[in-house]
This record gives sequence, C-alpha cells and structure tokens, in this order.
Amino acid sequence: MVQYVGVENMVRLIGSIGIEPYLIGLAGYIEADFRRWPSFEKAPRVASHSRDGVIELMPTSDGELYGFKYVNGHPKNTRAGLQTVTAFGVLSDVETGYPRLLSEMTITTALRTAATSALAARYLAREDASVMAIIGLGSQSEFQALAFKALLGIDKLRVFDIDPAATAKFLANLAPHGFEIMVAASAQEAVIGADIITTVTADKLNATILSDNMVGAGVHINAVGGDCPGKTELQRDILLRADVFVEFPEQTRIEGEIQQMAGDFPVTELWRVITGATAGRCARDQITIFDSVGFATEDFSALRYLRDQVEGTTYYDNIDLLTAPEDPRNLFGLLGRPAASSRVALGA
Amino acid sequence: MVQYVGVENMVRLIGSIGIEPYLIGLAGYIEADFRRWPSFEKAPRVASHSRDGVIELMPTSDGELYGFKYVNGHPKNTRAGLQTVTAFGVLSDVETGYPRLLSEMTITTALRTAATSALAARYLAREDASVMAIIGLGSQSEFQALAFKALLGIDKLRVFDIDPAATAKFLANLAPHGFEIMVAASAQEAVIGADIITTVTADKLNATILSDNMVGAGVHINAVGGDCPGKTELQRDILLRADVFVEFPEQTRIEGEIQQMAGDFPVTELWRVITGATAGRCARDQITIFDSVGFATEDFSALRYLRDQVEGTTYYDNIDLLTAPEDPRNLFGLLGRPAASSRVALGA
Repeated sequence: MVQYVGVENMVRLIGSIGIEPYLIGLAGYIEADFRRWPSFEKAPRVASHSRDGVIELMPTSDGELYGFKYVNGHPKNTRAGLQTVTAFGVLSDVETGYPRLLSEMTITTALRTAATSALAARYLAREDASVMAIIGLGSQSEFQALAFKALLGIDKLRVFDIDPAATAKFLANLAPHGFEIMVAASAQEAVIGADIITTVTADKLNATILSDNMVGAGVHINAVGGDCPGKTELQRDILLRADVFVEFPEQTRIEGEIQQMAGDFPVTELWRVITGATAGRCARDQITIFDSVGFATEDFSALRYLRDQVEGTTYYDNIDLLTAPEDPRNLFGLLGRPAASSRVALGA
Repeated sequence: MVQYVGVENMVRLIGSIGIEPYLIGLAGYIEADFRRWPSFEKAPRVASHSRDGVIELMPTSDGELYGFKYVNGHPKNTRAGLQTVTAFGVLSDVETGYPRLLSEMTITTALRTAATSALAARYLAREDASVMAIIGLGSQSEFQALAFKALLGIDKLRVFDIDPAATAKFLANLAPHGFEIMVAASAQEAVIGADIITTVTADKLNATILSDNMVGAGVHINAVGGDCPGKTELQRDILLRADVFVEFPEQTRIEGEIQQMAGDFPVTELWRVITGATAGRCARDQITIFDSVGFATEDFSALRYLRDQVEGTTYYDNIDLLTAPEDPRNLFGLLGRPAASSRVALGA
C-alpha cells in the first residue's frame, strides 16, 4: 500500500503541529538538503506550456529516495473560482522504484516556497532586518509572512495589493498571528523603510512591480512571483546593482528574474552560501536578491519532512495504487479466471 | 475531487467489461491517437537511472488533455517478491491544469503494451498469421497472448521460458481462454513455424533471445522486452535484413533494439503506417519488426479510455488530492485560525 496524505489530513497534520513549527521544521529539511546539493540528480523541470498556463513535472533523486511534483500554473483560473497553482507529489524508494508516499502539494508548495524564502533571507538579509514589505497578497502571501516570522522574527509588515479584497483576506487571515501590519496605498509606499521586500504577484507577464528607484541600499529582495518564461516582477536595472542568488541556475535563467539578463549574468547558487563555500551578504549597503523560482529538491525535502511527520500518526490513508500479486510475475493472476477452456500440449 | 482508480477497482472494471473486450476497446483508443500523432506534444521519457533500475516520467498532451505516467523498471525486484514494473498515471485538463483522474497503471501498462503490440501486428504481420511464439512468460506474457487473440484471432501459441515455474503460471492463467498452447524446450523450438514471434524477457542486459538463424522469411517480430539502454533481445543481424517499425524514433533509438544500430539506421514510424501515409508489410517474405518500447501517447490513450469506461460506474473513488478553497486566493484560510492577536494599522 502507498501512504496517501490528502488535503484533509494535511490540514489536520499542520493543525496538530502548528504552522510556524511546521515551517521551521520544513526549513530545516530544506536546509539539510541544500547542504548536500551535489548528491542530487538535478534538471530543469519538464514543462508543458499552453495558452493559459503550464503543467510541470519536477523530479529529483538523492540515490536513496526519488521524488517528483506535479504542479500547474494558470493565472486565469481564479476568474473561474479555481486556484492558480495546484500540486501533488510522490516519494519513492530508488532501490525498488516503488512509490511510498503520495501527497497533496498545493498547501505543501505554499509552505516550502515560503520556508525556502525565509531560509535564503536568513543568509542574505541584514541581521537587524525587522520590517518586511509584501507586494501581492494572493495565495502565497500569508505563508511568506509566517515563514519570515518563524525563521527571522519579522513581525512588522508593510503590504500592498491592487485588489482591496485580497488585502482584506490577508488581514483577516493574519489577524491571530501577532503581526503589526501597515496597509500601504501603493507598492511605492509599501517599500518605504522595509529591510526586506517580498514580491509575490501572479500575472503571467513581464510586469514592473519594483522599479529601480524603489530599492534602497541594504535591502534584501525576495522575488517570488516571477517564476516562468515571460513572467517577471523586477525592473532589470535593479538586477544590475544587486547580487543575485538562485536555486538552480539552469532553471532560473529560463524562469526567474534573470531571464531578462544575458545568459552569463553572474549569479550565486544558494547552496554554496548555505554550506559556507561562498559569502552571502558581505556589506550592510549591499542589495541582495533571492530570485526564487522553486526547485525540485525543495519539494523532495518537503515530502521527506512530511513522511517523517505522518509516521506513527493517523494523518494518512493507505491506498491501493500498486498491485501486489503473491507471485510478482503473476500480474495476470490478479484479474481472476473464467471457466477453463484452453487445450494445452506439453512438449513439442 | 479527483477520480481515483486503484487496483481493486481496476480489477473490478476489467472483470465487468471482460479482458478481451477491454483490450479491443483500448486498442481502438490507441489507434485513434496514433492517427492524430502530429497533434501530440512528444519527448523521450524523463528517466532516473540507478544501479538496479530506472524510474521514468512519461508526459504528453494533445492540447486539451495532459497525461503522464510514473513507471519503474527493476528486474531484480522479483527476487524480493516485488514486481519488475509498477506504474500509476494522471490525466489532467490543459485549460485549468487540474488533475481529473489518478489511476493505478501497473495492470494498465500491461494492457496497453499488449494492445499496442497487437495493433502494430495488425498492420505488419501477414494477414494469414495464425501461430505466435512467445519467448519469456513473465508478467506481460498473458496480456500479449490475449491481445493477439482479441485483435488478430491468434489462438495457437508456441511458448518458452527458462523458468518452468513461469511456464506453469502462464499455462494456468491462460487455461480458461481457449488457446492451443505448445510448450517448447527452447526458444529455437518455440519459433519453428511461428508467423509472429513475441520476445518479452526481462533481464536488464544485452541478451540474444533471437539469433539471426532463428528468423525465417515472412515473420513478424514483436520485440517487447528490450526497452531501456543496455537491454536488448535481438541479434543485430536480424535488424539488418528486416524492416523496423517504431513508436517515437527519438526514444526508441535510446531504448529499443535499434540502440544496437547507428543513429541513422532507417526506421518507419508506426503512426505513418496506421494513417496509410507509409506502407506496412509489402511482401509475404518480408521480415517486419515492431521495436516496442512503449510511448507516452499509449498511456494517454489508456487513461482516456479508462476515464470513459469508469464514467457513470462505481469503479472509482473520489480523493481529496486538490485543495478547493471557497475563494481560490485564500489557500491559507483552509488552515483554520487561532485566536486573534495581530495589531493592524490601516493607512500609512
């Protein structure tokens, strides 16, 4: 049997652990996997683009476990009452090729994206950072806020969305979570005095959420929304005077903010910063950018974390995704047998 | 909710339809999709190789539906009582990116592989073919036999396996299905007088299941077992005097019998034969080979067929693989709310 964690069990599991502890634990697994980055099989995701969106498969393996995520991105979905992003994933044993865990990953993707952002900021933002601006208050925004609170202690937010309903939703959702939130009238206003700027808008086009004059010295930009070809959020001038940190350059050059730049635009791989091989932030006035697109290893870490969290709990079901014939070569035997009618001749 | 067809429901569904009618219906969907081959997004599968096997993702799309299969191949698994191949797959709407159907595909892969073989043979074997040899009596063998019976009326089999237990299993499973079966003492003996030769062995190595002197004029070879790098069944001399038909050349050159040949070794694409654009068999003495490796469109066809078969039946469950928040941008709202404690300042 394969362990199955559906949406209901995922919500129950997170409720039992608490969302901030969940984000901290998850970030720990993501960090541990970034530390052993060279041991992973890595490739840009396998994307199927269509007019309105994209469906992607994101596989990776560390030689013992294999994981992949299915994820879509369809910005127009919200008009039909559907979500922009849905996802699910599977964790398997490499030795046998057998899937062990199938899980919803819509909530999990939101959590791991936020946990990765906060993890990167712990290495890249100024140590005394205390105020974060968030531009874009859609599905991912609350998760970002809580991850930065849980991992960096950021509890002062300056927020903006073009849609007042999104802002109201954000405020209502975060009301119980102990933030001090300033609702700005514009992105320009939101970024004033912010130590960290998180951009997390959803339109599938090259937008200018942050223009060059909005970004002052010492800021860390957590650029989350630009994550597929033709979808960016930052004016390219910002990239020219910042240091840019990425997950997997081969993928980020296709999907991230740096798709605006030449193919040899210098970037630093986040895993090198996490292992200490390369410096992260070197000066108080440096502008750092985490050009987040989301990489397969983060989903792998999230599935690994989930597997360990559900172990011994009731927060999963067992499903019959795999056949298990008594004799492994007798798959056909599972189908049952009608009454005999063949003529069999043994020997030539 | 996503429709889920687990192993138990798959067995019930096939039982309700009957395996031969199921194979005929499935072959019809596979044939229909081969007829519109240019409308599919096609790429070699995404493989993760390890010491003992391979895990593969096989995506494709026709612009309206997107499908992918997860499948492993681990020949050593049987020693541990596990199956060489297990699989599952998903069918999604391209417009929204939402998965609609998740299904077991271990049984389905066996069915679609056999249905594709028989479909190809209908275009490539001699019209008066009546005897089939099967070398290798593992998991796939009974499915091959029944597909050739259902689609071509082949009911005379000459079979061989190095393992007598596999032979006994094969005979027991097919006893009720109206075949006349001759058990041969060797592969050489099995092929004597056969109009069609199916090779379907499982070892992950370059083997010589058929040597050149075993293959006479007019034979159609259904080469199923050679399906990954380093795994072949035919002596290359056979390929030199035969006409070779393949599913997707880019993938077959990596995985099929023709991995033994130069990169420009001439092959004919099966879809061109099915549409009538190219001739299949042109002469009674021609040797034809279907170098089967299994392509993503066949799994897509199988998922499409399955979707249509379970519609209106009780042969599926609904599972909560996808979140469905009332407001699609309020994913966070699904996680519930602790008691209020945030301070909110509206305005600057």
